[in-house]
Amino acid sequence: MTFDGLSINLATVREQYNMRQAVDACLKQDIVAIAPWRDQVHAIGLSEAARIVADNKLRVTGLCRGGMFPATDAAARAKAIDDNRKAIDEAAALNADCLVLVVGGLPAESRDIAHAREMVADGIAAILPHALAAGIPLAIEPLHPMYAADRACVNTLEQALDICDLLGDGIGVAIDVYHVWWDPKLNEQIARAGASGRILAHHICDWLVPTTDLLLDRGMMGDGVIDLKGIRRLIEAAGYHGPQEVEIFSAKNWWKQPGEVVLSTCIERLNSVC
Amino acid sequence: MTFDGLSINLATVREQYNMRQAVDACLKQDIVAIAPWRDQVHAIGLSEAARIVADNKLRVTGLCRGGMFPATDAAARAKAIDDNRKAIDEAAALNADCLVLVVGGLPAESRDIAHAREMVADGIAAILPHALAAGIPLAIEPLHPMYAADRACVNTLEQALDICDLLGDGIGVAIDVYHVWWDPKLNEQIARAGASGRILAHHICDWLVPTTDLLLDRGMMGDGVIDLKGIRRLIEAAGYHGPQEVEIFSAKNWWKQPGEVVLSTCIERLNSVC
Repeated sequence: MTFDGLSINLATVREQYNMRQAVDACLKQDIVAIAPWRDQVHAIGLSEAARIVADNKLRVTGLCRGGMFPATDAAARAKAIDDNRKAIDEAAALNADCLVLVVGGLPAESRDIAHAREMVADGIAAILPHALAAGIPLAIEPLHPMYAADRACVNTLEQALDICDLLGDGIGVAIDVYHVWWDPKLNEQIARAGASGRILAHHICDWLVPTTDLLLDRGMMGDGVIDLKGIRRLIEAAGYHGPQEVEIFSAKNWWKQPGEVVLSTCIERLNSVC
Repeated sequence: MTFDGLSINLATVREQYNMRQAVDACLKQDIVAIAPWRDQVHAIGLSEAARIVADNKLRVTGLCRGGMFPATDAAARAKAIDDNRKAIDEAAALNADCLVLVVGGLPAESRDIAHAREMVADGIAAILPHALAAGIPLAIEPLHPMYAADRACVNTLEQALDICDLLGDGIGVAIDVYHVWWDPKLNEQIARAGASGRILAHHICDWLVPTTDLLLDRGMMGDGVIDLKGIRRLIEAAGYHGPQEVEIFSAKNWWKQPGEVVLSTCIERLNSVC
C-alpha cells in the first residue's frame, strides 16, 4: 500500500475562503481531499456542500466537529446529543470518512473532570447507534492537555482508546500530531489503535517554539519540533494509509497569507518534511 | 497525622522581594516554609541564605532547580551535570527537602524527543550518587505537556515514576497540580508514587480559563478549575503530609501586587479552597 497524499482541513484557510472557494483553490492545485467544518458547510448549505463534494469526487477525510457533551444540566446535555445526531447526518450527506469529536471540557463552574469524562462517554454512547446506522465512524480526537478545561477532557490516545474499547464498534480516533506528539506512550498507543482498526484520521501541523497563543499559533509542517515523518511511519505501520490532513489555526501568520500560498506551502512541506 | 500547612515558592514573589525580604515578609505572616530558586540564593550568597534558613528554623520544601540535561554536544551535557552537582551542594547547605529537577526539553534543532528523554535519564543517573552522598533527594517534576519542547520532556507522573523505578533510591517526584491536574491517570499514579515513598513535594496554584500565556499566567488557588482539595486528599492518602508549596508565575496579576497581599491571599486561599 502507498501513502495517499494530502487533505486540507478547511480551518487552515478559513479566513481566506468559504467552502466553495476553498474547494476551487484546492482543485487548482490538484488537492482532492478536504475536511470542512460544520459552520463552513452551513454557510453554503448542506445540499450545495454535498453537491460540490460529489461533483468533484472529493474525499472528505472528516467533518469537524461533533462532541461538546459535558454540561451542567440534563437539558443542555440532551441538546448536545441532538446536535451530534445532526452532525452525523451531515457527515453522511458529505460521505465523510468520519465525524470528528472534540468531546468538550469542564461545564461552567465545575472542577470535576472525572464527571466531565463520564458525561463524554455517556454522550458518545447515546449517539453511537445513530452513527452506526448512518455508516459514519465516530473519531474521538484526544486534544492536548492544555485544552482539558475548555475544549476536551479526553487528552491522550490511551484515554481515547479506553473509551473506544468500552463502547465497541463504530468508533475510533483522530490522531492529530499537535495534540499527541509529546506523549511518552505515543508509539505503543498508535500501535494499539492500529491493531484494533481504530485510526480514522491523521491530522498534521507543527508545534512552534515559542508558542505564543494556546489556540491560534499552530505552525506549518517543518517550522516546529514535531517529528512528522516519524509519527507518519508509526501510523502507516499501524495500518492507516489515508491522507494526512493539514489543520493549522494561525491567526498571526497563515490566516493572513493568500490562500493559494498556504495551499502550495502545504504541498511543498508535505513532500519535504512529512 | 495532620496537614502541615503552607510553603511559599519564592518565584511567587520574585518581582517584589529578594530572598531576604521574602523571608522577612513570610515570617511576618507566620509562614515558616519556603522554596527558593537558585538565582535568588546566588543573589544574596549561599552562606547568607543558609544562615537565614538556619537562624529562622525555616523548612525548605525544595530548591528550584536542577535539571536541563539534554544538549546537542557532550561538553554541554557534562557542564549541565557539573551544575547539577553544585545545585545538590546548595540544597544540602540549605537543608532542603529535595532538589527539584526540571529536566529540560529538546536540544536546539532536535525533533527527537525519545533521545532527549534518554539524555534525561542518563543525566539523572550521573548525579544520583552525589545526591545520595549529600542526603538530598532528587525530585523529578513532570511538567505540563505544553512545555515538552522547551522546558521538560518528562510530562506525566507515570513517566517520571518509570524513571524513578529505573534508577532506584534517592529519587522521587514533585507533584505540581498545574502540570498534572488534567491527567486521566492521576489518581492511580499518585497512589503509586506514595506506595514507593516517592512523593517529595506538593506544589499548588490554579489553571485559569482562559489561560493567556503558556508560562506566566498561572492562577491563585481558587481562581481556576483545579480540584485542589481532591488532589490534596489523594496526596495525603498516599502518605505525603508536607506543606503545600505555592508556586505562581503571574506576570499580569500577582507579580504586580504588593508582596504582603500575595502572601496573605495565599494563606486565605489555603484555608478556604486547598
